[in-house]
Amino acid sequence: MREFALIDRVRETCASARADVLLGIGDDAAVLAVPPGHDLLVSTDTLVAGVHFPHGTAASDIGWKSLAVNLSDIAAMAGTPAWASLALTLPAVDPDWLGEFLEGFRTLARRFDVALVGGDTTRGPLSITVTIQGVVPAGQAVRRSGARAGDMLVVFGDLGRAAAGLRWQLGRPEHARAAAPDDPEIAADLRALNRPEPLVALASILRGRATALIDVSDGLLADLGHVLRQSGVGVSLDLDRIPSWPGLRARFGADAAGALVLTGGDDYALLAAIPPNQVEAVLAGAQGLGIAAASIGSFASAPGIRLGCAGKPMPLPERSGYDHFQ
Amino acid sequence: MREFALIDRVRETCASARADVLLGIGDDAAVLAVPPGHDLLVSTDTLVAGVHFPHGTAASDIGWKSLAVNLSDIAAMAGTPAWASLALTLPAVDPDWLGEFLEGFRTLARRFDVALVGGDTTRGPLSITVTIQGVVPAGQAVRRSGARAGDMLVVFGDLGRAAAGLRWQLGRPEHARAAAPDDPEIAADLRALNRPEPLVALASILRGRATALIDVSDGLLADLGHVLRQSGVGVSLDLDRIPSWPGLRARFGADAAGALVLTGGDDYALLAAIPPNQVEAVLAGAQGLGIAAASIGSFASAPGIRLGCAGKPMPLPERSGYDHFQ
Repeated sequence: MREFALIDRVRETCASARADVLLGIGDDAAVLAVPPGHDLLVSTDTLVAGVHFPHGTAASDIGWKSLAVNLSDIAAMAGTPAWASLALTLPAVDPDWLGEFLEGFRTLARRFDVALVGGDTTRGPLSITVTIQGVVPAGQAVRRSGARAGDMLVVFGDLGRAAAGLRWQLGRPEHARAAAPDDPEIAADLRALNRPEPLVALASILRGRATALIDVSDGLLADLGHVLRQSGVGVSLDLDRIPSWPGLRARFGADAAGALVLTGGDDYALLAAIPPNQVEAVLAGAQGLGIAAASIGSFASAPGIRLGCAGKPMPLPERSGYDHFQ
Repeated sequence: MREFALIDRVRETCASARADVLLGIGDDAAVLAVPPGHDLLVSTDTLVAGVHFPHGTAASDIGWKSLAVNLSDIAAMAGTPAWASLALTLPAVDPDWLGEFLEGFRTLARRFDVALVGGDTTRGPLSITVTIQGVVPAGQAVRRSGARAGDMLVVFGDLGRAAAGLRWQLGRPEHARAAAPDDPEIAADLRALNRPEPLVALASILRGRATALIDVSDGLLADLGHVLRQSGVGVSLDLDRIPSWPGLRARFGADAAGALVLTGGDDYALLAAIPPNQVEAVLAGAQGLGIAAASIGSFASAPGIRLGCAGKPMPLPERSGYDHFQ
């Protein structure tokens, strides 16, 4: 398959009927109509084989995940995703692999009405960079920097499951307690790892309510740290109020489960700072969408993270998050 | 250097004062204000070491070029570049390399008032993906599809020089006639290869005048072919009217010079279809900007490329352009 045939295949597979795509794939640039009264959101994420997913991950899962991590960034601004570009670097063109990759990408793109509007195909070691554009009513993007002392810390989605899936896939010893590979818990872990569900639907509930928002890609503590630094606050955090905690503790024991929940990463959960008088509405809204949500702590003016479990203080794990160059 | 220190360094080095950057690097997504009455342009290009630039290319040249190829795509829509994202995959963090890379990127970004608003840093084989956003007055983007029989084919910039520079760098035999490495012609070839000048300044001259527009990245014939296919026209093209042709012929002989000009690629020249009554204004406008420009042919309803030189027909070269997966 030659490069132009490859581009044609991407275009045909991922065509979209969005009226705001004035010109899609096939020119020097896409031409897009941003709705009046909206700000533009832009985010870019790269997935590298062997770094962001194990070698041997199914192509359809890589396609899904490369878009999912970007959708999660738009969700983390309380925006609505609209258009994506796909820069695909491949060692060689394998039509089967490409077909499966595009199937995974397209399935998620259709679910959220995201149009693929451009990209690039190059030869080289497998790597995927997606840039996504979203929109948000002007001035209503929710930043990391707005958390205030007294706000509650609310988590949406399952923390720790993706990390559990990765450890199972890599055969790590924490999985000694785990049962057969068709165990429904392990299947759910692997789904969280390979087919994360970006929490885009929460945007309309969080806009105007959340004072700060971030998605959890590097681990709860690492990403919460960004909110604390940028907002100039600290937080008290109760491990046992995290919805996924009891199940993981029952499967892996308290220590391993704590590591998964606090530092696992790859969760694409959302963390929000919510003023106390808005918490009830936000939790009810998430429940209405079928998204696990809980108030797991509170922000305070004293800096730092004070971790507790069942009313007792807990030390922070030494390694608090993922760093690509550590 | 850890990942967050690396991101901080990118942010500090490439800070911009554009008022339409409501939120730049450092959150889940950038927040940008698209000016009212404008369409958004988006383009993505990946550069892979050993494919898009020889191993050993200076880091500052890679930084420059990774932005230049994207600026050229915005120029090829007659748009104005505004914001860029940088996805940088590095085998390891070498602060010297990174500093030089950013210096090259920043120099060009400042020249065109482009703000770096986001990106990603990952570990892996060296690869750079830049996504650029530009703006254009609503409805005025110039596509590849608008050329009409009777329009003139106008080229802007130097064709063939970058390919000559690459062959010199790779020690190809066509350079047997070439003199010492400090030969000013070779220096100009290498500048064209490593520091291409995107022709962004032409946008205001071409908007409302050009009926079709494309930049030359894969070679004149290959990129002209896109215009022909998408516009449903053919073209007569005179090699000897291309401004860079006589100089290259004198240095390399007619055959090698023809290959450089017609199929060399990496030029980031622009090709435009211009109605005859607009050609004079367009050429004068380019001259005013110090950009080489010439009318080198004319579009016709009969499909195909009819190549001539000094009034005689010439056969098309067999290999007409670059294909990453050929």
